[in-house]
Amino acid sequence: MSYAYLGPVGTFTWIALGQVEEARGAEWLAVNNVGEALAAVERGDVIAAMIAVENSIEGGVSAAQDALASSNGLQILGEYLVPVNFDVVVRSGTDLPSVRVIEAHPVAYAQCRTWLEKNLPRHEHLPATSNVAAAIALNDTDRADAAIAPHGYSEHADLVVVGDNVGDNPNAVTRFVLIGRRQRVAAPTGTDKTTLIVELPDDRPGGLLEMLEQFATRGVNLSLLESRPIGDELGRYRFVIDLDGHVEDERVADALLGLKRFSPRVQFLGSYRRADGHSPAISNQNSDAAFADARTWLARLIAGEEV
Amino acid sequence: MSYAYLGPVGTFTWIALGQVEEARGAEWLAVNNVGEALAAVERGDVIAAMIAVENSIEGGVSAAQDALASSNGLQILGEYLVPVNFDVVVRSGTDLPSVRVIEAHPVAYAQCRTWLEKNLPRHEHLPATSNVAAAIALNDTDRADAAIAPHGYSEHADLVVVGDNVGDNPNAVTRFVLIGRRQRVAAPTGTDKTTLIVELPDDRPGGLLEMLEQFATRGVNLSLLESRPIGDELGRYRFVIDLDGHVEDERVADALLGLKRFSPRVQFLGSYRRADGHSPAISNQNSDAAFADARTWLARLIAGEEV
Amino acid sequence: MSYAYLGPVGTFTWIALGQVEEARGAEWLAVNNVGEALAAVERGDVIAAMIAVENSIEGGVSAAQDALASSNGLQILGEYLVPVNFDVVVRSGTDLPSVRVIEAHPVAYAQCRTWLEKNLPRHEHLPATSNVAAAIALNDTDRADAAIAPHGYSEHADLVVVGDNVGDNPNAVTRFVLIGRRQRVAAPTGTDKTTLIVELPDDRPGGLLEMLEQFATRGVNLSLLESRPIGDELGRYRFVIDLDGHVEDERVADALLGLKRFSPRVQFLGSYRRADGHSPAISNQNSDAAFADARTWLARLIAGEEV
Amino acid sequence: MSYAYLGPVGTFTWIALGQVEEARGAEWLAVNNVGEALAAVERGDVIAAMIAVENSIEGGVSAAQDALASSNGLQILGEYLVPVNFDVVVRSGTDLPSVRVIEAHPVAYAQCRTWLEKNLPRHEHLPATSNVAAAIALNDTDRADAAIAPHGYSEHADLVVVGDNVGDNPNAVTRFVLIGRRQRVAAPTGTDKTTLIVELPDDRPGGLLEMLEQFATRGVNLSLLESRPIGDELGRYRFVIDLDGHVEDERVADALLGLKRFSPRVQFLGSYRRADGHSPAISNQNSDAAFADARTWLARLIAGEEV
Repeated sequence: MSYAYLGPVGTFTWIALGQVEEARGAEWLAVNNVGEALAAVERGDVIAAMIAVENSIEGGVSAAQDALASSNGLQILGEYLVPVNFDVVVRSGTDLPSVRVIEAHPVAYAQCRTWLEKNLPRHEHLPATSNVAAAIALNDTDRADAAIAPHGYSEHADLVVVGDNVGDNPNAVTRFVLIGRRQRVAAPTGTDKTTLIVELPDDRPGGLLEMLEQFATRGVNLSLLESRPIGDELGRYRFVIDLDGHVEDERVADALLGLKRFSPRVQFLGSYRRADGHSPAISNQNSDAAFADARTWLARLIAGEEV
Repeated sequence: MSYAYLGPVGTFTWIALGQVEEARGAEWLAVNNVGEALAAVERGDVIAAMIAVENSIEGGVSAAQDALASSNGLQILGEYLVPVNFDVVVRSGTDLPSVRVIEAHPVAYAQCRTWLEKNLPRHEHLPATSNVAAAIALNDTDRADAAIAPHGYSEHADLVVVGDNVGDNPNAVTRFVLIGRRQRVAAPTGTDKTTLIVELPDDRPGGLLEMLEQFATRGVNLSLLESRPIGDELGRYRFVIDLDGHVEDERVADALLGLKRFSPRVQFLGSYRRADGHSPAISNQNSDAAFADARTWLARLIAGEEV
Repeated sequence: MSYAYLGPVGTFTWIALGQVEEARGAEWLAVNNVGEALAAVERGDVIAAMIAVENSIEGGVSAAQDALASSNGLQILGEYLVPVNFDVVVRSGTDLPSVRVIEAHPVAYAQCRTWLEKNLPRHEHLPATSNVAAAIALNDTDRADAAIAPHGYSEHADLVVVGDNVGDNPNAVTRFVLIGRRQRVAAPTGTDKTTLIVELPDDRPGGLLEMLEQFATRGVNLSLLESRPIGDELGRYRFVIDLDGHVEDERVADALLGLKRFSPRVQFLGSYRRADGHSPAISNQNSDAAFADARTWLARLIAGEEV
Repeated sequence: MSYAYLGPVGTFTWIALGQVEEARGAEWLAVNNVGEALAAVERGDVIAAMIAVENSIEGGVSAAQDALASSNGLQILGEYLVPVNFDVVVRSGTDLPSVRVIEAHPVAYAQCRTWLEKNLPRHEHLPATSNVAAAIALNDTDRADAAIAPHGYSEHADLVVVGDNVGDNPNAVTRFVLIGRRQRVAAPTGTDKTTLIVELPDDRPGGLLEMLEQFATRGVNLSLLESRPIGDELGRYRFVIDLDGHVEDERVADALLGLKRFSPRVQFLGSYRRADGHSPAISNQNSDAAFADARTWLARLIAGEEV
């Protein structure tokens, strides 16, 4: 009963995994990248893996979606949001003015540029593949004087913060998803999201419109829609879709049935509790009750009963 | 076990009723108009009534649809086509040159104008409410010398044809429907038609489009679409719809479920064998099998089984 | 400078023509039917003709539309509404109880049934091709005791009203259109209607939807939509459309340009003042100003100017 | 007349800039990142800048789009494709078996993993912010034995290739765009692309569909469609769109006019020659000629001329 995360201890992915109730008390397995994490799930070494989406430091949305798309046995189990900010940390005894070399992942480094230009105008940047590894190394080597670590990381290490919350964007948030093996979909919570990958029949302007009508006629709202070249030939696209609702909501189930008939390939990546707690406004005509009423009505009129 | 038709014997409606297998050997009740016919069905005096639609002599499409719309217990049981042509008939002993006065329904009279202008340029027209009644009267009174009767009518009467197939349009066909009380819908025949009356939610350009998307997303073709003012206030419409298929076809049932949720009022007027024997081309993705496959797929993915 | 109408004096069509300002003082030509009326326009004998639409006594919507569809040189110039009610009229000296035979057009007769059954339960019906002709005949022959005339007709004749407003439906209204030769479309009035006949590219469920999207994307509302079999082969339809607005309104013009590209055949039957005075609610985004703004924006961005 | 690119000499961006005919013979300015490149354009220091899109080493699609979205005076001038592959390079005198430390950008390093694991199973990775910088450093320092450089880079440097085309994906291609200041759009070439950012009116399922109908009714195909949260409040999205065609193509211009009326915000990022030389199939009904014909038709019918 263990969980994989992008290690070492202290990464944003590690923070995200801390939000998973079932993972408390379980064994946590640190891995080096998304590929290793998903492989561990597929092999059954771990029960699930936390991976970053929409984040260019610990993994990108493309990497996660492509990994899920090419696997056929994985499923998204939940979505988690982690505020993304950074501290500049040093080994005990170093003060800010004496910092000359900062070791950091290039992307994180770029996101702290404003603070660094103001507070350390003459520093040097030593690139790292992992911010946390760079922070750990401060106490092992002297190749750098400071590191850029996830905000709050110093609580887990013998390090001193000389720059607190140094990111350019104080409201930055990163999205993570917990990936498990294919399994019975968890029951709806009322605040759910469903992820699909859908191919269009062929390259005509109307194809996309027809696909979206499958959602619109059931009142299903999309929160993510991205075209991706399929790659087999010019001009064919597939679409990554996040929709508001759960596959066991009547309107979502009906839209999926329509999609399945319409599209040469529909891949279901999971229905799961969404992280922002948002409940979509469902009009009466698309409620579960409306679907049930319509079925009763249809059965009665076929039977010749009064409607 | 009797059937109502617009009498007397020999009308086009009577010819149409002759196409109904179950009516052979049953008692036939001649009535004076569509209202009487439907009232006889509602009261249970007859098992069904034949009425004309899209025909301005023996009844119009509006009359039939409005009668069905305001009734809540009637249903269309079948559709029948009758070639519409006319003969000029006279009593025995009269020849064409001696015809001076022709008794005929004004609409039928108008449809034979070309022949009449050429062959009887100096005749006089005596209007009638019924062509057949006018033909019968030839042997009872001398107010007219000729009548315009349904083609072939002379077989049922002691009359002589002096003008055969005199209608301007030799290919004219009229459509009839057999109306019964609400009952279990007859099984699909593979060449069926379904009639609906649907109201739109409100007066916005998109409302009609949204309604039609309910059909288009299921591949259901419409063979009749007519807007009608609802009459309660300005700018509200209802739509009379004939669609290709039977309410027990999966794609039609699914479209009806969608319509029922979408529309404030959907009235089902019946699924029935169509008269022209046309079978709509159903694409694979809208076949009954495609619907069944999609349901299996959905159940499997919810259960976490391989799909 | 004369105008044609369905004669004789006193018909509903004659009443409708009385609403046409330009026709006051002009010569009025009584004709026998819609065909004669339109032929007189085409030949140039009259400047315009009033014809009934949606009316089963003096002409039907199908007759008018089909006549316009097959002609290529006619245009609708205006729309007129006439309340439809009837009086029972007799010759001077006759009272109601002594009425035995009523001469009337079958359709008008049917529309007065309630009053007749109550007030003259034992009368006899003599069918007529024209109610006004029947009324006129009261003073010439004694074949009938009463006639059913347009309400108010007695003002034009030496006749006495013994039943006033005897129609079953006191709110009945009939629609008329004034037809002229093709000419420069009259300027928009702010309360206009445009009539079109549009063919679909081919028989597919999406064809109708695509046509209606041409209206919806420009916010154009339809007040009439009727499918009609084209007649050349099975399953091809054309659509008769009345839309809210004038061909010189930007949104209507743009929809027509889209239709013209989409459809194998678009027939324009005229833009004209509507009779009910209704002005459609045009959203800001479909106003003439929005169209002009968008063109300015597009020109500026192509030119590389700030937008 | 100078051009900016992500330096130093030899990067993929530098290769891309080599495809720009006008840049030959001009001064080239090496910059450190996309932000610097665009700032140089905005200030007028350079006439244009080449930046990578859809590439995780030299810049990502998000960075480019977001930079363009927040700027109001920049425009895409052209699109360029560069095959992406790598060589393992060493300083003269080093052979493959003796390589212990490889300096490379983490993303490039990850893309060569298969070759490295097979050919250098026991090497060590020294992360770099720039592959080219790492290659240059080979002759300046001895901190590494090898670098991973863009394929062909050794032609520009005193270095030896010990691993040729070592990328995992031999067909990898990266897309670049040339960005200039807002200017008159270049004339259509017949193989053009147009980039837009469009906001929807509000959060309703139909909003996206209505936007896409603006393209579909004009037969405009989309090659990229991506939703992006606007960020000001929950559930509002904007869409990044690449469409086939040029803003001076009639169908594209008409779609833009429709979008402009429909959407609260349409941002035009340029019409430019596409790199793959693909010409979209334009149906007759959406050709420039069809638009011109429709306008002529409309003008004639308003004028009352024969059509």
